Amino acid sequence: MGDLEIRPAVAEDIPAIVAMLADDPLGAQRESPDDLSPYGPAFERLAQDPNQHLTVAVREGRVIGTLQLTVIPGLSRKGATRSIIEAVRVHADERGSGLGTQLIEWAVAESRRLGCHLVQLTSDASRTDAHRFYERLGFTASHVGFKRQL
Amino acid sequence: MGDLEIRPAVAEDIPAIVAMLADDPLGAQRESPDDLSPYGPAFERLAQDPNQHLTVAVREGRVIGTLQLTVIPGLSRKGATRSIIEAVRVHADERGSGLGTQLIEWAVAESRRLGCHLVQLTSDASRTDAHRFYERLGFTASHVGFKRQL
Repeated sequence: MGDLEIRPAVAEDIPAIVAMLADDPLGAQRESPDDLSPYGPAFERLAQDPNQHLTVAVREGRVIGTLQLTVIPGLSRKGATRSIIEAVRVHADERGSGLGTQLIEWAVAESRRLGCHLVQLTSDASRTDAHRFYERLGFTASHVGFKRQL
Repeated sequence: MGDLEIRPAVAEDIPAIVAMLADDPLGAQRESPDDLSPYGPAFERLAQDPNQHLTVAVREGRVIGTLQLTVIPGLSRKGATRSIIEAVRVHADERGSGLGTQLIEWAVAESRRLGCHLVQLTSDASRTDAHRFYERLGFTASHVGFKRQL
């Protein structure tokens, strides 16, 4: 098994990232892997925002994982900067390999490097395996996550 | 009762915002309203980030509410931009006046204006009154919110 590289996503990674977003019980309802046109402009907005870190994990030239790390300054907690992890996906072929742990530990280390004092994320209430995963990685399920569609 | 104004926060609002952050069972443990030195640099980071909207509600020249709205582009959900609401506070004298509702409805309208397709927030599991408040405002408690201190 080749070396794992975790690096910033580039535009050429969009098809592989979208395929992973769609290959998921929730994502299958929400993504359009056969029509990538909405994703290009969104990638550009991410690329132009210095507080956005869309990231991929690559092995032997193949994109096998992704997450989005957002750095959020704020006044709360004595002016603490925090980070938010969104859109974590591991390719179906790689599940159970420890790649998810490597991705999250990378995001935690990168958050620390960027001066964050807190890392947070939300996980759909139906993803109970993911909840155990995050608790094993030192996260506390202290909050309720609310969403409203516009 | 004078007119309510909801506007971007300026540096002069920092003491009033921090006083509200601290006047709260959780915030009292985390803030330093008698030492504002950590908050100035954090305010500058917020002010320089076009995706950050630190906001205050003002009546008769007095800051009586605050929230932080963050706009987050992303690939998920066909490239949907989302917003996150953090650090919502209403001055103790104004609770029960409907100001919280006005602030959140402002944040929802502003998110829509900024092209967001989703608004999300997390609320500490202990804040059960807040949970009912957000559900009345059309939010769904669909997620579990995880945090890890660094």
